[in-house]
Amino acid sequence: MQIGMIGLGKMGGNMARRLLASGIDVVGYNRDTDLTATLVSEAGLTAADSLEDVVAKLDAPRRVWLMLPAGDVTEGAVTELLDCLSPGDVLVDGANSWFKDSMRRAALASERGLHFVDAGVSGGVWGLANGYCLMVGGAKDAYELVRPALEALAPDAATGLIHTGPAGSGHFVKMIHNGIEYGMMQAYAEGFTLLKGRDDFELDLAGIAETWRHGSVVRSWLLDLTTAVLADDQSLDAVDAYVADSGEGRWTALEAIEQGVPTPVMSLALMARFQSQGQQDYSARLLAKMRQAFGGHAVYGNEDPPGD
Amino acid sequence: MQIGMIGLGKMGGNMARRLLASGIDVVGYNRDTDLTATLVSEAGLTAADSLEDVVAKLDAPRRVWLMLPAGDVTEGAVTELLDCLSPGDVLVDGANSWFKDSMRRAALASERGLHFVDAGVSGGVWGLANGYCLMVGGAKDAYELVRPALEALAPDAATGLIHTGPAGSGHFVKMIHNGIEYGMMQAYAEGFTLLKGRDDFELDLAGIAETWRHGSVVRSWLLDLTTAVLADDQSLDAVDAYVADSGEGRWTALEAIEQGVPTPVMSLALMARFQSQGQQDYSARLLAKMRQAFGGHAVYGNEDPPGD
Repeated sequence: MQIGMIGLGKMGGNMARRLLASGIDVVGYNRDTDLTATLVSEAGLTAADSLEDVVAKLDAPRRVWLMLPAGDVTEGAVTELLDCLSPGDVLVDGANSWFKDSMRRAALASERGLHFVDAGVSGGVWGLANGYCLMVGGAKDAYELVRPALEALAPDAATGLIHTGPAGSGHFVKMIHNGIEYGMMQAYAEGFTLLKGRDDFELDLAGIAETWRHGSVVRSWLLDLTTAVLADDQSLDAVDAYVADSGEGRWTALEAIEQGVPTPVMSLALMARFQSQGQQDYSARLLAKMRQAFGGHAVYGNEDPPGD
Repeated sequence: MQIGMIGLGKMGGNMARRLLASGIDVVGYNRDTDLTATLVSEAGLTAADSLEDVVAKLDAPRRVWLMLPAGDVTEGAVTELLDCLSPGDVLVDGANSWFKDSMRRAALASERGLHFVDAGVSGGVWGLANGYCLMVGGAKDAYELVRPALEALAPDAATGLIHTGPAGSGHFVKMIHNGIEYGMMQAYAEGFTLLKGRDDFELDLAGIAETWRHGSVVRSWLLDLTTAVLADDQSLDAVDAYVADSGEGRWTALEAIEQGVPTPVMSLALMARFQSQGQQDYSARLLAKMRQAFGGHAVYGNEDPPGD
């Protein structure tokens, strides 16, 4: 089997390696050609120098996997590939795209006789070794056309892979997956913060995390990673208290509003990230001024840190 | 080694079995004597018919483990045992007691020359087979006196067991553990609710949960259990939408207030349980009346369910 891989960064590059190691021929393209050259020499990738060249180097029916940042970059590549590909070919988007974009792109592909498959991919940089968890939407015949590649990427052929339903459903399931991830991460972070805060006990956070990995109700893969982080450094003094967010957390909150369903934990975990990004600072300033206005309470300037 | 076990319910009974299976002699007492008799015949327990009888059947230095409901029941047993035990004996509380109660009880024990150990125990009904995760506070010499029992209860002698620090710290760590558990459970519950809510995709919740168990970022033991629940029945129509809470979630929220540290996810997960218990109904009624007052919006009575 042959497959084209567009985007050879942390995710796409490792996925290309895993596909190549399973015996699948991968034709790869990346804007930064150094990454492509490394994969050619280390893993046997076939290099292409444009999207059109990827298409030219594949036999019909072509399978092309996009592993690019969601949003404009993916949109541009989809638009270009819809013009290059031929009826019967399959275009797979493995990015964290919004599921409504995937439904729209599937409709555009269908108008041209092309298949569109939306593959939610979880596993991060550990996927190369562990395999990726794959949530895949699209028509059944399109799914079957890329199935050998999906099975090679999954932990094994029997696990970590599901055909979720029609186009869009794969990215929908991945979006909810990430919403859950936001909530879980925030729960652990809050808990370890309270452990750290009760300094009269002088708790060993790394030791506690390691202990919780065995037999406890909160054991998980995220806890495994957190344990390694804390074993390396419990103070975290050198880390900026800033948490980025990507589209998935926001879209999950929007989905809750669209469904009219309360999701306090997933939504508040997102808000906590916004707060870490400084987006609550204006609120805090305004609240400080309100307290001053009604009660004459002190307002702290940059030179007067609170704490007295 | 000998140990007394007070309380032979779901937790204490299984723990007695695990201790007996490891070769430790267990003298057990339970108010409901049927449970005691079963453990005598099935697992080799030595039965006692009162707390005093447990103490009488143990050699000094005695080790007595309380596995009773936290609160008044545990308080009563601690009070009685402080009078029965002799200097050098160790009293272990394995309940989900508030860590400040454990600190107070440790001080009372110390006044009489007794040791007090607070053991946070996680693992639920699966602990018998998997071993229990144990977070144990108390003086080092007291910890050493019960260490063989702790190692028999843990998944193995090297994992899932930590001496957290002074008396109170074991129950403190267990309290935070349960606060994290509340947040994680709520995150999963919210996510699966949104998956169920988008009914145009007709998603297989059990299949998705099973897939997430392999290679995904949200894999965990709680997800393993949730997968089994959903595989049995995805509709959950027969389950009351009521979630109980125990002290741990509340004390975690109080701890956040005492430390002045934001814990939106753990605290909101607790509030969501209160809401499931009907404790937001009065608020909802009042809000409905406010909407009517300023906007003339309809208020629904019992005969007029919303939905039109």
